[in-house]
Amino acid sequence: MAKRTERTATKGADEFDIIARYFAPLAKDTAALGLRDDAAVLMVSEGHELVATCDTIVEGVHFLKDDPADSIGHKALAVNLSDLTAKGSRGYVYLLSLALPPDVSPAWLEGFASGLRDIQDRTGISLIGGDTTASPGPLTITIAALGLVSHDHAVMRLGAKPGDRLYVSGTIGDACLGLRLLREPGLAPSWALTKNDVAFLVEAYRRPGPNNDLAVLVRNFAQAAIDVSDGLIGDIEKLCNVSHVGARIEAARVPFSAAARKALAREPGLLPVLITAGDDYGVVMAVSERSAADFESEAGAKGAAFTLIGEVVPAGEGIAVLDGEGQALKLKRKGFSHF
Amino acid sequence: MAKRTERTATKGADEFDIIARYFAPLAKDTAALGLRDDAAVLMVSEGHELVATCDTIVEGVHFLKDDPADSIGHKALAVNLSDLTAKGSRGYVYLLSLALPPDVSPAWLEGFASGLRDIQDRTGISLIGGDTTASPGPLTITIAALGLVSHDHAVMRLGAKPGDRLYVSGTIGDACLGLRLLREPGLAPSWALTKNDVAFLVEAYRRPGPNNDLAVLVRNFAQAAIDVSDGLIGDIEKLCNVSHVGARIEAARVPFSAAARKALAREPGLLPVLITAGDDYGVVMAVSERSAADFESEAGAKGAAFTLIGEVVPAGEGIAVLDGEGQALKLKRKGFSHF
Repeated sequence: MAKRTERTATKGADEFDIIARYFAPLAKDTAALGLRDDAAVLMVSEGHELVATCDTIVEGVHFLKDDPADSIGHKALAVNLSDLTAKGSRGYVYLLSLALPPDVSPAWLEGFASGLRDIQDRTGISLIGGDTTASPGPLTITIAALGLVSHDHAVMRLGAKPGDRLYVSGTIGDACLGLRLLREPGLAPSWALTKNDVAFLVEAYRRPGPNNDLAVLVRNFAQAAIDVSDGLIGDIEKLCNVSHVGARIEAARVPFSAAARKALAREPGLLPVLITAGDDYGVVMAVSERSAADFESEAGAKGAAFTLIGEVVPAGEGIAVLDGEGQALKLKRKGFSHF
Repeated sequence: MAKRTERTATKGADEFDIIARYFAPLAKDTAALGLRDDAAVLMVSEGHELVATCDTIVEGVHFLKDDPADSIGHKALAVNLSDLTAKGSRGYVYLLSLALPPDVSPAWLEGFASGLRDIQDRTGISLIGGDTTASPGPLTITIAALGLVSHDHAVMRLGAKPGDRLYVSGTIGDACLGLRLLREPGLAPSWALTKNDVAFLVEAYRRPGPNNDLAVLVRNFAQAAIDVSDGLIGDIEKLCNVSHVGARIEAARVPFSAAARKALAREPGLLPVLITAGDDYGVVMAVSERSAADFESEAGAKGAAFTLIGEVVPAGEGIAVLDGEGQALKLKRKGFSHF
C-alpha cells in the first residue's frame, strides 16, 4: 500500500509533469489532445444525446486517508459511472479535477491512476482532461463524466407509474458494514464474521463495482431509475417524488450478501441502518408489470443480479417499508444526508 | 458583504433543499431537469462539437476567505469560460460541484449563486447539474463547463507557425497587483495609487471578465490560442511547446492598465512579476501575418481590446522576452506553478 507521506510527488514538480507522468497514459481518446490542452474537443455521434454528471469525493467524508490509493481512484470514477448507468448510458469520457494536499507521494499518484485505469479497462470510459491544483487538504477529487445514449432513450427519475415493479441490482449495505469494520475492527467477532467476510465488506466500501454493463438493461426496460448512493429507501423516495408516486418495499426481499446476513442475524437492529446507509452504487429501476418477465429473463441471460423488492403505488400511499408480517417499519431516516 | 459564519446554511438542511433554494433558479436549460436528477441529458446540435473543460478553485489558494461571496461564484465560472474562449467556443452548460465547510451561511450561498447568475446573464451559459457535499474545509469549488463549436472549428494550442503575430486581450498583471494590495494594503501609497486604482485592481483579482464574447474572434482568426491563467509568458510557452515553435515577446508592448502603469513607474522591478503572475484570464492568440490586418479591424469593430505583443519564431529561438533596447529579460520563472 502506498503511504501518502513517503515522499511528496508535488514539491518542485510542475502540474504538467504530474499530468504527463501519471495521467496522460489514461487519455486514450483522441479528444483528449494528449492532455496537453486546457480543454477537450468531442464529437457526439448523430442520433445520440450526451448524459453529464459530476461527483466529488472528499478524504474523511467519502473515503479514509488510509484507504489504498488505487481504491480511491476506483471509487471516484465508479460513483460517477453509477449515475450514468441509472440513465441507461454507457460511459464515454471524463474530466478529473484533483485538489492535492502537499503530502501526496509519487507512489500514491501511481496507485490512484491505476485505480482509474482499472475502471477504464472494465468500462471503456477514457480520461479527456481536468485540472490539478494544490490545496492545504483534505484531498478532494471531482470527476465530471459524460455518457452517450441513443436519442430519446435516456432514463429519468420521472416516469415510474403505480403497478411498476421495483428492482435493485447487487446487494445492499455491504459498504456500510465495511466502513464500520474499518472504524471498529472489534465488531467482526460480535457479528461472527470470518476474515474473508470482513475483507469482502471492506472491499465493497472501497471498490464499488462500476456496474456500467447494466446500462443496456436500464435503457431497454426501465420506466424510471436512480442509482443507490445515499441509501436504498431514500433514493427510492427521490425517484418517487420526481415521478409523483409512492412505493411499497418489502424488507424481506432486499438482497443482502452472505456476510451481511451474518451480521443481521446477530444484530437484527442493523436492518434499518443497511437499507438507508448508502454507498451501495447499485441501481434501482421501475419496470412495467408487462415487461417484468422479459426483464427478468434478459437480466438472467446477462448474469445481472437484479432482485424484485417492491412495487410502485399511488403517491397518497407514501413510501412504506414492510417487515415480514406486513407491518410498516419505522425508520429514523430514509437516507444519508451530508448536512 | 455576506459573512461566512453568520448562520450556517447547511446544518440540518438537506442537500436537495440547498439545491432547490439556491441553484435550481440557475438551471434554465431544459437539459438540467430542474436539477432534480443526478445527471443531465443534452442534445448537441448537428454540425457541432463539444468542448469540455474543468477547473477547481480552492479557498486560500485561488480566492481569499473574505472575498465577497458573489465574486467567488463569478470567478469559479469565469475561469472556466476563459478556457472555452481560448478554444473559440461559446459556453453552453456547466456542472457545479461544491465541497462546503460547515460554516457556510445562507447569505453566503445567496451571494455565491448571484455571482454565477451574473456570468450566466452575460454569457448565456446555464447550470445543468452537479454535486453538493460536506467537507471539513477549505471551501473547494469545481466547475466542468461544456461549450459548442462548429465542427472542425475548435482552436487548439497546436497550430502556431513562425511569422504568426501574437495578440493578447485585455490588460496584464492587474489581478496580481490586486491580490498583493489585499494582502498588504500599505503598498497603495508606495505605488502612488488612488482609492479608485486600488478598487480597480482588487476587482480584477476578484471578478475577472468572462470574455466569452471574444470566442468568435478566436474561432475566425486564431491559428492557435491559450487563455492567460498561469502567467502571460508561461502560457505563451505552453502554446509554443505544443505548436513546436518559439516566441519573441516585446515587453514594452504588453498592455497594462493605468493603475498598473503607476505601480510600474514606482517599482520597475514589478515588470517580470506582472508578465508571469497569472490570474489574468485573457486570451493569447497567434494570427497569421496575412490575416492580421483583417483581425485588427474586426476586433476594433467589435470593441475588443487586443494588443500585438510579439511574433512566433522557429522553435530553436526559444521564448525570448525583449526589453525596450532589444535585450532579453532574465525571468526567474515564466509562470505560476501550484507545486
